Parts: sequence; structure tokens; C-alpha cells
Amino acid sequence: MQFQYENAYDVKARIAEKKVAILPVGAVEAHGSHLPLGTDNLLAERMGAKLAELTDSYLLPTLPYGQVWSLRNFPGSLSVSNESMAMLLTDIGESLHRQGFRVFVMLSGHLGNGTALKEAARRLYEKTPELKVYHFFYPGSKEATARVRESSPLHGSYFHACEIETSYMLYLADEFVDMDKAICDIPHITEEADCTPTPWESFTETAVLGDATLATREKGETILTASLKAMADMVNKAKREAEAGR
Amino acid sequence: MQFQYENAYDVKARIAEKKVAILPVGAVEAHGSHLPLGTDNLLAERMGAKLAELTDSYLLPTLPYGQVWSLRNFPGSLSVSNESMAMLLTDIGESLHRQGFRVFVMLSGHLGNGTALKEAARRLYEKTPELKVYHFFYPGSKEATARVRESSPLHGSYFHACEIETSYMLYLADEFVDMDKAICDIPHITEEADCTPTPWESFTETAVLGDATLATREKGETILTASLKAMADMVNKAKREAEAGR
Amino acid sequence: MQFQYENAYDVKARIAEKKVAILPVGAVEAHGSHLPLGTDNLLAERMGAKLAELTDSYLLPTLPYGQVWSLRNFPGSLSVSNESMAMLLTDIGESLHRQGFRVFVMLSGHLGNGTALKEAARRLYEKTPELKVYHFFYPGSKEATARVRESSPLHGSYFHACEIETSYMLYLADEFVDMDKAICDIPHITEEADCTPTPWESFTETAVLGDATLATREKGETILTASLKAMADMVNKAKREAEAGR
Amino acid sequence: MQFQYENAYDVKARIAEKKVAILPVGAVEAHGSHLPLGTDNLLAERMGAKLAELTDSYLLPTLPYGQVWSLRNFPGSLSVSNESMAMLLTDIGESLHRQGFRVFVMLSGHLGNGTALKEAARRLYEKTPELKVYHFFYPGSKEATARVRESSPLHGSYFHACEIETSYMLYLADEFVDMDKAICDIPHITEEADCTPTPWESFTETAVLGDATLATREKGETILTASLKAMADMVNKAKREAEAGR
Amino acid sequence: MQFQYENAYDVKARIAEKKVAILPVGAVEAHGSHLPLGTDNLLAERMGAKLAELTDSYLLPTLPYGQVWSLRNFPGSLSVSNESMAMLLTDIGESLHRQGFRVFVMLSGHLGNGTALKEAARRLYEKTPELKVYHFFYPGSKEATARVRESSPLHGSYFHACEIETSYMLYLADEFVDMDKAICDIPHITEEADCTPTPWESFTETAVLGDATLATREKGETILTASLKAMADMVNKAKREAEAGR
Amino acid sequence: MQFQYENAYDVKARIAEKKVAILPVGAVEAHGSHLPLGTDNLLAERMGAKLAELTDSYLLPTLPYGQVWSLRNFPGSLSVSNESMAMLLTDIGESLHRQGFRVFVMLSGHLGNGTALKEAARRLYEKTPELKVYHFFYPGSKEATARVRESSPLHGSYFHACEIETSYMLYLADEFVDMDKAICDIPHITEEADCTPTPWESFTETAVLGDATLATREKGETILTASLKAMADMVNKAKREAEAGR
Repeated sequence: MQFQYENAYDVKARIAEKKVAILPVGAVEAHGSHLPLGTDNLLAERMGAKLAELTDSYLLPTLPYGQVWSLRNFPGSLSVSNESMAMLLTDIGESLHRQGFRVFVMLSGHLGNGTALKEAARRLYEKTPELKVYHFFYPGSKEATARVRESSPLHGSYFHACEIETSYMLYLADEFVDMDKAICDIPHITEEADCTPTPWESFTETAVLGDATLATREKGETILTASLKAMADMVNKAKREAEAGR
Repeated sequence: MQFQYENAYDVKARIAEKKVAILPVGAVEAHGSHLPLGTDNLLAERMGAKLAELTDSYLLPTLPYGQVWSLRNFPGSLSVSNESMAMLLTDIGESLHRQGFRVFVMLSGHLGNGTALKEAARRLYEKTPELKVYHFFYPGSKEATARVRESSPLHGSYFHACEIETSYMLYLADEFVDMDKAICDIPHITEEADCTPTPWESFTETAVLGDATLATREKGETILTASLKAMADMVNKAKREAEAGR
Repeated sequence: MQFQYENAYDVKARIAEKKVAILPVGAVEAHGSHLPLGTDNLLAERMGAKLAELTDSYLLPTLPYGQVWSLRNFPGSLSVSNESMAMLLTDIGESLHRQGFRVFVMLSGHLGNGTALKEAARRLYEKTPELKVYHFFYPGSKEATARVRESSPLHGSYFHACEIETSYMLYLADEFVDMDKAICDIPHITEEADCTPTPWESFTETAVLGDATLATREKGETILTASLKAMADMVNKAKREAEAGR
Repeated sequence: MQFQYENAYDVKARIAEKKVAILPVGAVEAHGSHLPLGTDNLLAERMGAKLAELTDSYLLPTLPYGQVWSLRNFPGSLSVSNESMAMLLTDIGESLHRQGFRVFVMLSGHLGNGTALKEAARRLYEKTPELKVYHFFYPGSKEATARVRESSPLHGSYFHACEIETSYMLYLADEFVDMDKAICDIPHITEEADCTPTPWESFTETAVLGDATLATREKGETILTASLKAMADMVNKAKREAEAGR
Repeated sequence: MQFQYENAYDVKARIAEKKVAILPVGAVEAHGSHLPLGTDNLLAERMGAKLAELTDSYLLPTLPYGQVWSLRNFPGSLSVSNESMAMLLTDIGESLHRQGFRVFVMLSGHLGNGTALKEAARRLYEKTPELKVYHFFYPGSKEATARVRESSPLHGSYFHACEIETSYMLYLADEFVDMDKAICDIPHITEEADCTPTPWESFTETAVLGDATLATREKGETILTASLKAMADMVNKAKREAEAGR
Repeated sequence: MQFQYENAYDVKARIAEKKVAILPVGAVEAHGSHLPLGTDNLLAERMGAKLAELTDSYLLPTLPYGQVWSLRNFPGSLSVSNESMAMLLTDIGESLHRQGFRVFVMLSGHLGNGTALKEAARRLYEKTPELKVYHFFYPGSKEATARVRESSPLHGSYFHACEIETSYMLYLADEFVDMDKAICDIPHITEEADCTPTPWESFTETAVLGDATLATREKGETILTASLKAMADMVNKAKREAEAGR
């Protein structure tokens, strides 16, 4: 399942059979004191592993650097540009296509990667039309999230180091969570934050956007199970189509 | 030591103290049947961990995609362009500098990454002159290699899945080596390979360039210990200079 | 108020006084049969004029070409790339800054322009930090919309040639609306549309996403008045800050 | 005739019939005190409308930002780079071709746009060879100009806010001309201005290059009628060839 | 005078004294049968040598590749893109500035290089404002040309392998001219050639644009002496200004 | 043999026959006091002439600007970027292919050009696969060098203005060598120079890396004759293959 642990002799036939490559894409980014900098990498990687299992796909090694513009001034954050990411991801997609893959899943654990992933997906749509490309950021999680969450959702689509993301970590990587340090910090984010470049230090000191103390492993499991199902359904459909197209 | 497992509260002071970030850079590439596709990632990552320990530095998460032009048509190889890599690495370097690092080590496990790493290092030399940037590919290993190797060296600086690289793996990641499948395959590589774009399928079917059966853990340890010492000496000197420059 | 109708002798002092330049950004795009291709240009331009009046700002001539990837295969749609737009907008922003402006408002009438506008805003944040840059796409309209809309909202943030957008046109440019041709066409848009490049012809033949027959001038007025107020509040605040910073 | 006022249902058949799209390209630029900043936009737009009528073509919305390097330091001038323009124009051309157009006319009202327009035309020549691309800047006007002009021509191909351009405005947009403010200002422009980057503030304070007081509506009509005829002849020929090639 | 024949020990003081570097820029391009492909290189190089002598400047080695779009399909023509040229010339300019030069003369023997040279000059104007940059293509030759020419001038600024250019060669490089093969070939070039990409094979088979049989060494000498004087005047003035600015 | 001295009438048939174009690529770079700045241009040009003769090929005019990062701060050095060079060389290669050439030899006299040449060769490998592209920097010289050299080789592949390069000049261009000024200067170059951007002023004042006093014309002849043979063998083989492929 782990692509990089295969050898070059066996892998060719298996690519032809599996057809799907899953690339976890994360980031190194401040996530308060109760979660590690690599939270988005851990989430993407472990979600990727589960999705690979559910769909009999190959899991690629994680791309652990992402676009972290908003939090780039917080300690520990590392950020790369949209264009650098889009170029690298496009290269990887073309390479996968040349190797015989027919479905390329970019599974992101970090919202800020969205622009680069979408751009790469569209470039590949032109360059290698027979490669189906997905860019996932917790699709299909909306209803389950609404059902389990206790704190109010914050501004727009933002969620970060909060009840929800901490629950994800408790489910997938609890050895890296220190709930003793979990805090509740509900910043006031104005409408303006969507309309002008707004580094997050202008509204939060902690980089925790919500109430992390409400996080539980069960909430994480509920939401991510729903999301995994949504992803697996899409991937399996694409896989069947690729097989039919043979 | 693992940067991404730190949290944003503690990391600031530690960056100021450690000053050095080590980025393993590998590749996913065909390495015969006895070594995995991720050989260069495993080597870079584990060498990086050792170097971080020797120099009290931070180890960054591995960048697992590299420039694999020569072997891109072999099963399992994934290749990205020099320019994509150089841009991403330059972004990472600038970000590290903004975070307070003063020494950035790109430790490569894959020869083909050399052009991109050197280019990134030179761009950073202009953009962030106070950041010392290293691009390492087994420096200081020449004498030790000459001492322990039993097979003749092949063409120029090429070494791949051979006595030497397999020995590295036996020392650093033997759980991924299957010596039963190790072969001896000595291709004839003409001078022309240095003078015109030459995909390796034109001179090898196995992607093994030499006699992998001669590999031993001891040879790997001897060479890599020498190389680690050479790297540690450079990094420690740069660290002292950065401290003095404070 | 219309910047391009000023002459070069009078304009210098007035820039120093007004400080704000508003650039309407639209698109040429299929909008069913009851709305013209230039709907997004008309909306951006007329919203821009109202905002300029409310804030005593200069209105720049409209940039009438936008990123229309999703609908590019529909008759009449013209599309430009994110990068072309981002570069041109960055150039315009730098030029405005050199002319003495301190607030640059990009007011978009087309959702697809979002990526380019945000990218340009961030580039300007680095290049001309004293220029405050806004990228608006109907901010502050959420509550008013929820209050007046009769049809159910469709998929995510999509709205196109529907009850809402047609209401905008009835309020701002009813001479271009042919309500006799307004239709109700509620497509089924799957989750997948957010996760893979999805040209809209895969789920609609009409490019009308909802029930345009429910549109009224009053609904348009209610929503856009709320949005204009939100925009004017932000712009006026930025203007005051620019004056204070003098 | 105005492309953006069509709707997506009717437009397809009409594109197939008309075949020609005319894009006015102007600039926002200082033109003394008797002419507005948007002079080149007004001229391009109104010439475009006349040409569309003469050739039964579609008129696209005006691109109102141009390359204004030489006058960029004059109050009110906005300038964009050659590369940004060339990229955007190439995108528009490709989009027109995809929509079924076979002739793309870029009609410029601003000399400084010449480099970008020519570059875009050549890029399209490679990318979409069956799309005929014109870049017009008052072709066919030489003889008529020589006949009617009373002042001596200035340096090379320069003309700006002078007898000639003011006459154009009196013919096409006299509501924006204030002849009371028209002046005569004949700068001394050395040969060097053609041989080294020379911002115009080095030889003029007014940005009027000649004697604007001699302008008349009749002169404008005479010259522009000649130029329109020249343009219409070329466009009609291209249209016939496109029809024949069907 | 020839920069590349100096050695690194002596050159530093001499740069400080001379201040001016002259770069001949030519092309490899079809010039009929009586002139060689390298005509523009020979002219640029020898004009450069004369200008260097007149102004006590350094002559750089010739850049012998130019933008030859219009004639690229003629036998022997080699063409490079505007952007490649502009980048290389900008690099050279920055390097000259770092070496201590204060005046950079790009002396072109080929009209098609104009766009790239002007673009490079403007980039250097921003990057190294204290470096005065000239782009010369026979400035100051207009009157002398009108005086000596016997054939009628062709279309616009075109001249190629004709009475004029052949006279230049007879004056500067007659060992490469074969007057026995000189022909008179006056093509009909329509206005359209200025308005749409027009490869020259659409109006000439010979690439001779005029009457080469009328060429004489004296005509060449008369025109080029005038042009050299114009260039020397500009360069000497710039040199004096650079000295004063010391 | 000199391509640029041919005329456009004769050249077409000769290209079809010769098939090979040789481009000397040099640099302007400090080479101590006994060798001129243009040493690498002279060597590339004269080696190119010999190779053209040996293989009945066309010799193109020399590209005399190269990537001189390491020595860019030495008096007289001019440096251009890898990307500018790679773009220009790719353009030239495409142009040669369009003209009918089937083998393109880039013969470099300067080590620092290696990255750009290899990059251009790989780009052409994708764009014009039927064009065989070589990038030569003294191939096949290793054994002969080892045989004749008296001084010890310095660090890695570095050689510069030393016994070897001076011998080349004595053989190919002795009129530009001043042996009275030849010196022996053996710098200490640490391993670090390969691992971090290292301008050469950090280890040498003279830019002579070795013992130039040991140079002789005979040594140069021995080595270069071997290298020319190696190059001619490759080129002739490629030529035969191109002929066979006709």
C-alpha cells in the first residue's frame, strides 16, 4: 500500500491493477501548545492511509510543506508559495500518469493548500486529461460536524486547532496531543478578514480558533468516518470508470 | 529534534538556540528489486536524524520528491523538474530565515537533486545572505569509499543500487533490503552518457549499476560515519559563526 | 468620481484627497437567456459607482475579462488565466500606489475571479505595504440574502443567473433583463464538483443555477444595500486610517 | 453588435456568422488639461464601434489599461507591463478561438500598447494558427494626416494630445474635450529619446506634444474615415477568407 | 579596446577610466545571395569597433543571435525569442554595472532586435538606475540616407539586403559582398504587414527588399559616418555625465 | 564551414548534407594576468573549428557570455544566469532543427556553463526529439591529462588558468598568452566549497588555480587531440544515424 516501500520489479503490475495514487499534503504550522507543528501532516498522512486501505490504492509519501501565508509569522510556521506548490504537484501528477496511474488524489490536511491544489488539478486536466485528479479537504464532513460539535462554528470555513481539529488528532494521532494544554480562545474575526490580506496575528495570539477543550476522540472518529466514506465513494467510482475505460 | 513534533509555544526559544534546520531531500525512484523505491528518502531521512543529533539541530520533515530524469521511465520512478524543486526549496529557506534559523542544511539522498539544490542555495545567497545554506550529497566519503569498496567504481560519479548504496541501506534501513534479490549487473556506460541526454534504459535493464551482492552493513557504516563527521564539522563551524555573529 | 474623465492637471490634488480607487472586475460569461453575457461587468460597474459615491472615491474603468474556467465551454464565455489576471491587477495596484492612492478596492462581480484577486492582494501586501487592498465579492450579504430568498440555496457558494443574481440585475441593470425568458432550473450538483475540475456542462445545460423566476428588484435592493454598507464601512475605515497615517 | 449584451442562447449562431471580434484596447494616461485621462479608451472604443458596424462584427468590451511607461510619472497615468498585457490578450484570443471566432482585431488607441499587442499576435499565430489576428493603431492614416495637418509633425511616430489626437476626440468624443484649455506646446525632443529610456517629464511639463489649438472635428473625421476604411478592408478580406475556409 | 583581450589584473583601472562598454548585437539571417547570413553581426561588430575608438570605450564580444521572426523560414535564418534576449541582455547589463561600468551601449545591426533591446534597457533602468543604457540601430542616419539613396525607400522602416544595407557592407566588410549576385527585387508590401504577423515569404522570395545593385562603398561611408557621429555624441555626453557624477 | 559566411541560397542544400551545427559557448572571465578574459571563448571557438573540420560540420558564431557565478566579483568577469542561457540555447536549438539540422553540438570552454547546457539539452530532448544534442566540455581528456600533467590536480573537477588550461591556450591561441606573467598559486580549497555557495575570492586572490608555469604547447596538443577525437567519434556516429534515419 505504501508506494515507496515497493520495489521497481513488482510495482508495474500493481500500478496497472490499483490505478489510484493518494498523495497526503500537509504543512508545518503553529497549532497552539496542545498540538504539534506537524498536525496537518499527521492528519493528511493517516487519513491517506485509511483511504488507501478502503480503496485498495497506493499511498505516496507525504508532501509536508504547504502554503501558510496567514500564520507565517507564528513561531514554527513554514510557508511556501502557491506557485511553487502548484508546479511541484503538476509535475508529480504528470509523472504518475506516465507510470500508468489513472486517478490522482491530493488529500490535504491544510485549508491554505486549497488554491495550489485546485490550480494543479486544472493544469493536469489540460495536460493529462485521462488522469482523474481529486483535491480533498475533508469532503462530506459537514453534516457529521454539525451533529457532534458543541461549540459554535467560527468565521466562515476557518477551523484551526479547535474542537474539531483537535478531535481529528485525538482520533488519528493522540500520541501527539496534550489535552492538558488545550484552551478555549474564541477570537473576534471581522468580515474584513475575508476581504483584505489579514495575517492571523491581528486577531489571535494563540492560533487556537475556538474551544479545543471540547475535543474528543469520538467526535473525530464520527466526522472523519463520514469524510472517508465520501472520499472512498468518489475514488472507487473513478477507479471503476478507469477500469471500464481500459 | 523533530521540528514538526514541537509546538508553537516552545519552539521559538529553541530555534534561537539551535539555529540549524536540516531538510532531508530524497526521491521516489527505481532501485532494482532488492531495494525499495523510497531508498533515497530513507537514506536522507536517517542521515538527517544522525546529523541533527550530532549537531543539536532541528530535523525537518523529508521532502520525498526529487528530479529523476534519467530513470523516469523505470517502473515506480516519480520525477519533478529542477525549477519546481528550486522554487520550493527557496521558499522553505526564506521561511526558515524568517523563523530565526541561521543555517539551512539540504541533505540529499539522490544525486539528481544536485542541480536544484545548488540553484536554491545560490538564490538564497542573494535573498537571505545571513542564512548559511548547505547542499550535501555524502560529502567527505571519498577516501572511506575507496578503502572499503571491492568492486570497481563505475562511470564518473554514478552510483546506484550498487555495492555502495546497498551498504548504506544495510547500515541505515536494513529492514527494507532484500539481499536475496541483490544482483551484480555492470553496465557498459559510454562517455556519451555525460554529453547528451541519456535515459538509463539505454544501458541498463535493472537500474542496478554495479555489484550489490558485495554490500555489507560494515561498509555502509564506515563510509557514512566519515561523511557524517565531515557534515557535522561544517555545520558546527557555521553554527559557531552564527552565534558569534549574534 | 469617474477617474478616467478627469484631466491630468486637476487629478493630482484630488487623488491626495480621495485616496481610494475602486476597480470593478467582471467577466464575459454565459448567464442563461434572460441575462446578458456581460452581467458580471454590469453588476461590478454599478456597484462600484454606488460605492464610490458612498465613500467619495474614484471609480476606475472596469476590467471586463475574468477567469471563467467552469463555464468556458458555454456559448459566449471568455476566460483568462488566474496568473494573467493576478499580474495585471498587481501592476495596476503598483501604479495606483505610485500615483498617491492609499486604498485599492477590487470589486468583483464574478466568483471565479476570487483566486486572482486574492493573489494580487497578497503580492501587493509585500510590494506596497502602505497600500490597503480589498477584494470584494458581495461581502456582508449573507443575512439579507437568507432573509429574502425564497428558493433554497444551491451547492456551496455557487450562485449564478438565479433568484439572487437576477434580483441584483433587476435592481441595478433591469434594462438588460428579460424576465420572460427567466427559468427555474435546479441542477443536481454532487459533492464531487468541489473536489475535481468540473466544467459546468456536466450538470447544467442552461447555466441557470436555481429559480430565476423568483427574482425581484426589491430582493436585489435589500441584499445589495446591505453589502454596500458593509463595503463602505470597511473602505471608510481604511480611508480614515490612511488620513491619520499622513 | 455589442458582444456582452448578447445572451448565451442566441450568441452561438451569431458568432458562426459574424466570425470577427473587435477588442478596443486603450489606456488611462495624462493628456494635458483639455483632454481626459481616458482619451485612448474613448477613441479605441468608438473607433471599434464604427469598425464593427462597417464589418458586421462583434464589439468586445474595452480593455482600459495599457502600457504607459513613458508618461507613468504624470498625474493620473496608470501603467501595466508588456508581459501582463501580452498574457491577458493571448488568453482572450485563445478563448475567442474556442468560441468559434476566426478573426481577432485588437484596436489600440495608445501607441505604447504596440509591443504587447504584437507579441500577443505572434503568440496566437503559433497557438491558434487558424485565428487571424490584427493589431491596429490608426493604419492607413498617413496620407490623410499629411493632407490636413497644419502644425509640423513632431519627433518620429510620437503624437499625443496634439492637433491630431485632439481632432480625433473632437470627431469621436467632443463632449470630453475642453478646447478652452487647449494649448500649443512644442517640446524639443532629441534623437536620444529613441535610444535610451526617456520618461517624458524630461522634455515636457504639459504632456501636450504639439499645437492642440489647431484641432478641428473635420480633421479628425478626415483622418479617421481613411483609417477606418483601411481597417475595414483588411477585416472584410479576412472574413471572406475565413468563410471560404469553412 | 577589445574587452575580452584584456587581463583581469589591468582591466579594473581601465574600466574606471573608460566607463563605457559597447555590445554589438547582430543576428544570423538570410540576406539574399550577395550578402552572408552573418551580415548583421559583421555590421554591428565593425560599427562597434569604430564607436569604441571614437569614444575610447571597451568593445565587448558580439552577441551573434537575434530575433528573426519575420525571416525565420528562410534558409539559414536562426531566431531567438524576445524574452530570451531581454533576459540575457539584462544579465549582461547588471554584470557590467557590478564591474564598474556606467554606460552600456547595445549596438544592433538588426531591426528585429529592437523590442528585446528596449525591454532590456527599461529593466536596467529600474534595476541599476546609475547605469546609462543605449540601444542603437543606426541613429542619426535619416538625412544622410535621404541624400545619397537612388532607389525609393520601401515600406516603413524596413530595409534589408538592399541599396542601403549593401552599401554598409561595402564600406565595412566588402570582403563578404559578392556584387555579381546583387539583384533588384522590389516587393509589394501591403499595409497589412504592419498589422498582422506576416512572415516575409508571403511577399518576397529573395529576402532582398530593394535594389542592391545601386549599392556603393561611398554611400555606406556617408551614412554610417553620420550615424557614428550621432552615436559618439550621445556616448561622450553620457561619459562626461558619469565622470561628473563621480 | 563557418555558417554565418554562407549565403541563404547555397546554405539549404549544404545543411541537408552536413546535418551538424557546432556552437562554441564561452565566457568572459578573469584568468589571472597571463591569460585574457576571453580565454574560454577562444578555446571554445578554436576547438569548435577543429571539430567542424574533422566532422565536416557547420561552425556557428560563438556565444561569448556564460554563467560565471563563482568568479563574478573578479575584475573583468561578466556573468549571466543559468535560466537566460538555457532559454537562449533552447531557442537556438529549435531554430536549427527548423532549418534542417539533425545534430546540435554545444561545445563549451567554461565549466560553469554546464548546468545551462544540460538543461537546454533536456528541454530540446522533449521539444525536438529528432535533434541529437551534445553538450561538450573536454570529454575524453581524462587519460591524456593524467599522462602529461606534472602538477597535482586540484579540488574535484576545478581547473582554471592552470597548467592544463594554459597549455590549451598555448596550443590553440598562444598569441594571447603571456608566459612571463604565468604564476604558480595553489590555493587551499576545502570540502565546503562543494557544499555551499562559495565565491572564489574566499580562497584565491589570483584566480589561478595551480601552476601555470608548467604549461606547454605540447601538453595542450596531447590533451585536446584526445578530446577532439572523442568528440568527433560521437558526432560522426550521430551523423551516420541521422543519415540512416533519412
